[in-house]
Amino acid sequence: MFKKYNVIVVGGGHAGCEAAIAASNLGSSVLLVTMNMTTIAQMSCNPAMGGVAKGQILREIDAMGGLSGIIADKTTIQFRMLNQSKGPAMWSPRTQNDRMRFSEEWRLQLESRDNIDFWQDTVNEILVKDGKAVGVKTSLGIEIPGDSVVLTNGTFLNGLIHIGEKRFGGGRAGEKAATGLTEQLISLGFTAGRMKTGTPPRVDGRSLNYSLMEEQWGDDKKGKFSYTDVETPKEQRCCWITYTNESVHETLKEGFEKSPMFTGRIKGLGPRYCPSIEDKINRFAGRDRHQIFVEPEGWNTVEIYVNGFSTSLPEDVQYKALRKIPGFENARMFRPGYAIEYDFFPPMQLDATLETFLIKNLFFAGQINGTTGYEEAASQGMIAGINAHQRINDQHELILKRSEAYIGVLIDDLVTKGTEEPYRMFTSRAEHRLLLRQDNADERLTPLAHKLGLVSQDRLDKVNEKVENANTIINYLRKTSIDKDLINPILVENNNSPLTQNKKMVDLLTRPQLNIYDLANSNAEFKVLLNKFDEETIEQAEIKVKYESYFQKEFELINKMKKMEDQMINPDFEYSKLNSLSKEAREKLNKVKPRTIGQASRISGVTPSDISVLVVHLS
Amino acid sequence: MFKKYNVIVVGGGHAGCEAAIAASNLGSSVLLVTMNMTTIAQMSCNPAMGGVAKGQILREIDAMGGLSGIIADKTTIQFRMLNQSKGPAMWSPRTQNDRMRFSEEWRLQLESRDNIDFWQDTVNEILVKDGKAVGVKTSLGIEIPGDSVVLTNGTFLNGLIHIGEKRFGGGRAGEKAATGLTEQLISLGFTAGRMKTGTPPRVDGRSLNYSLMEEQWGDDKKGKFSYTDVETPKEQRCCWITYTNESVHETLKEGFEKSPMFTGRIKGLGPRYCPSIEDKINRFAGRDRHQIFVEPEGWNTVEIYVNGFSTSLPEDVQYKALRKIPGFENARMFRPGYAIEYDFFPPMQLDATLETFLIKNLFFAGQINGTTGYEEAASQGMIAGINAHQRINDQHELILKRSEAYIGVLIDDLVTKGTEEPYRMFTSRAEHRLLLRQDNADERLTPLAHKLGLVSQDRLDKVNEKVENANTIINYLRKTSIDKDLINPILVENNNSPLTQNKKMVDLLTRPQLNIYDLANSNAEFKVLLNKFDEETIEQAEIKVKYESYFQKEFELINKMKKMEDQMINPDFEYSKLNSLSKEAREKLNKVKPRTIGQASRISGVTPSDISVLVVHLS
Repeated sequence: MFKKYNVIVVGGGHAGCEAAIAASNLGSSVLLVTMNMTTIAQMSCNPAMGGVAKGQILREIDAMGGLSGIIADKTTIQFRMLNQSKGPAMWSPRTQNDRMRFSEEWRLQLESRDNIDFWQDTVNEILVKDGKAVGVKTSLGIEIPGDSVVLTNGTFLNGLIHIGEKRFGGGRAGEKAATGLTEQLISLGFTAGRMKTGTPPRVDGRSLNYSLMEEQWGDDKKGKFSYTDVETPKEQRCCWITYTNESVHETLKEGFEKSPMFTGRIKGLGPRYCPSIEDKINRFAGRDRHQIFVEPEGWNTVEIYVNGFSTSLPEDVQYKALRKIPGFENARMFRPGYAIEYDFFPPMQLDATLETFLIKNLFFAGQINGTTGYEEAASQGMIAGINAHQRINDQHELILKRSEAYIGVLIDDLVTKGTEEPYRMFTSRAEHRLLLRQDNADERLTPLAHKLGLVSQDRLDKVNEKVENANTIINYLRKTSIDKDLINPILVENNNSPLTQNKKMVDLLTRPQLNIYDLANSNAEFKVLLNKFDEETIEQAEIKVKYESYFQKEFELINKMKKMEDQMINPDFEYSKLNSLSKEAREKLNKVKPRTIGQASRISGVTPSDISVLVVHLS
Repeated sequence: MFKKYNVIVVGGGHAGCEAAIAASNLGSSVLLVTMNMTTIAQMSCNPAMGGVAKGQILREIDAMGGLSGIIADKTTIQFRMLNQSKGPAMWSPRTQNDRMRFSEEWRLQLESRDNIDFWQDTVNEILVKDGKAVGVKTSLGIEIPGDSVVLTNGTFLNGLIHIGEKRFGGGRAGEKAATGLTEQLISLGFTAGRMKTGTPPRVDGRSLNYSLMEEQWGDDKKGKFSYTDVETPKEQRCCWITYTNESVHETLKEGFEKSPMFTGRIKGLGPRYCPSIEDKINRFAGRDRHQIFVEPEGWNTVEIYVNGFSTSLPEDVQYKALRKIPGFENARMFRPGYAIEYDFFPPMQLDATLETFLIKNLFFAGQINGTTGYEEAASQGMIAGINAHQRINDQHELILKRSEAYIGVLIDDLVTKGTEEPYRMFTSRAEHRLLLRQDNADERLTPLAHKLGLVSQDRLDKVNEKVENANTIINYLRKTSIDKDLINPILVENNNSPLTQNKKMVDLLTRPQLNIYDLANSNAEFKVLLNKFDEETIEQAEIKVKYESYFQKEFELINKMKKMEDQMINPDFEYSKLNSLSKEAREKLNKVKPRTIGQASRISGVTPSDISVLVVHLS
């Protein structure tokens, strides 16, 4: 019934969609198998994309030809660049999105690809031959042949939903769980674990009193995720902020004895950095209030997402507590919050390509690897889709370095250290975060993506042009001195010490109080030059000049570590024979199968002396 | 957690949505409980509304303030007025619709009502007190109080999906079934039955060769369902027609031994007039081909609905057979066709208001009553919603007569005769179909709807104005003679016998070959008059004149039967005490509890002599 596909993607969430697109971009024939074609690319939790570190990931996905950024842009109802008061490494784009539009747009994008087919069914078995994935078997008993398989099962594997003391099977509220697959993978030798995540209640926006909340509008100057010239809506919708209080907390506490979190009924660990409201009250007992973001679910719908109020307390407790939040006095719920437990596979069972060690040509991406977040899932999906294609075509695998991308950090962390609780990206996880900025993801990754065949020559040309143009500006700043008489009035106006002699523009620009347009205002020739370029190019030049010394130090650091990061280890290296390694190191190294000395050094339990032994042995 | 609602509607399909709107129109507070808020108003089967008899029902719903027509209009991708070559009683509007838009539009319409709230959950118990429904209990164990309850569970009650020899629980493919409610209703004394329906496979439009099919475009002059001035898209999409052949049939037959239909695994009876392809091959063995309508699922999606190919044969047989249809040689499936068995409640357990006899304030609408079709469901939902409101406010119930509306025929048939197989509306079911036309539903029903408070004064004024204007035209035609010298050239041109003397315009218009604009072309004054009115008004006048004699006979028939239809019977009448009735009649009358002598006369097993006994006794 089915031809043999190059890549079979199981699951139609963020990870599955990007996996399909990446493999499609490279020319693979793809089959996307989803339990329900009407719920492709559902935003299961909050109707928002990006944010701190996550916005950077979306820009990286976009720079490599993924679609999450473009689709988020098209369906934006509000845009904010977070952390604008901090340095550019912290700037993080974030959007609120129209949930329905987002899902629809993804479906249309997938459908527009000639080499992506669809099948509505549930996969409950991977077909394996000679240690290789060769297809999938579905709940209808259909065997679909494929050269490779990417699993992106989200929260559906043996999903169990908890609300207070009630629990029932389901992959999301109102949807069925997927059974059978975990059991088969375990029988093949995989280790499975259990994780937990949760979602807040949704309420009826018509029942809220917004006058008791703080308005939160998007940026006046609306940005976007994609480096392409995708159209994004001109209008924006308002969001609101309100706060819990002691009374809310007291009410919630009344439900603690029925909480599946506190009574031990939920075994899986939940996301530390996206805790439930009961968790927050419990862990931060000293805090008398917590922030609640009141987020519309779209342009027209009255449904509201109560961000910050994730909970699995009994629904009547949710309700009573909600109504004590300012503005929620008459709130009506549409759906209660809930917790969901699901199976994941500790990701140290994966190579850095996201291929499993146990079964060749089988890749895992998204929550199945113990991560949380749309962006984390989408980026893994993209990498898995790329490497599935590369693997079956005997092409070079793609492993992004920690110094190249947040995506590199994410996957290196997962496969090197594993994760005990849902893994979420933060800027603090990236040691080279100064270089992994949202503004330069194109410069960092598009050349690489182009080399692989993920993006067009035209797109690469544009990136190169932007870099050249920024360099033109930087060179001008380097070689040109500013007339102190022209700039001093501006300096004085900004409470900045005036110049006693003319100075190179490049040196002046490192002053935090001064921006590139101030310089243009005191140099007509420079102004003419800037006018030739777009804002992004000018910003790029400014950032590179302003933070040059920091970046330089970072580059030096990378260079120092380069030796370790570039020293490859054969994945088949037999650590057990290297007796001079500690026993723990032998075991861990054997499990993680690091690709480089650098990766080996990050494995917990592998000591610097173990690394020395390895380096000596390998050289 | 919940306030007490006036009307709790269980289910968010066509019936549930219209029930909510009707009760809302009348001022009731409504809670719509649905298993999944993202799938409200899903078109579970074909992406089309209306058609023969069904288009008339949609017009009737619209005339009474329901929204199915408006929403179908807004989401139309193709419009056709079927049967235009026949008399106006057969004209039937039909649209292809964008499945996603349809669902979204319904949700937005429901959300725009201040008195409709939502709750995502599964109802598995009706709360009953003193023989009255007083609310519902959900799978979360929540008790929601309500003055009345409308059940519209569609195919979800113990839904069981069949594909070949495989079967699994589900309300629709990929969705959960609803359990518990049937069992409770049976324990309360209800009789439940089992029915079956089915749906065809969906295929990938990109895999079809349309050049081997016949194009089917919509009407050049695009009509609509609603009498309001709702905006409907200007563009239309093409559909296609193709045919099965002997080879397709032979292939399908290979699967017969695994067919759940033929092996007896499916116990429920399916819709006779919407048979599966295997049914058609079986029942009409002499036919060497069957028509297949190739219907796009929306404006942008590539998904195609294969209308006419409903099947529950094994999916590999579906696939093999599909590919033998011209244009489908390379077809790829998105989802297989399947059959679904579900619980229904034989509708003789209902009063003509759709209230159950057993439990007061409990109403049933849609497939739960054994019907099939979106329009049948929607209209029942509307009537149930109206009567739920009327009941709890001690207001007059609404029972549409068979001479007033298809909806009257539908419900009278259901509650008087019951149904053994999924009931679908046909023009032939309506003895007064000449009067129950799509063009006059507003005249028939809007005054009634206004009286109940379902539609605005403004809307009634417009209907009255249209009627008056049509009468102005008709009166002019009645009183004015046409100049034979002016009309004869037109008559001759139309192969029509010329006049030998001047004649009243009204008499000329009864000639089939002549239309009202021909008359206008030979009478300048009349032309000026017509120019004052819109097309619908002119058409109305023309129909009334052209078919006056037929209508007259119909009115006389209705008048003759009026006595019987108007002679009311107290629902509490004790037939058992009337010994002169036959035993069978006593039993049947007791079960059906007819509202009128007319209804009593339509009960199978009740003879004319039984009716005489009744008439004598009652007068």
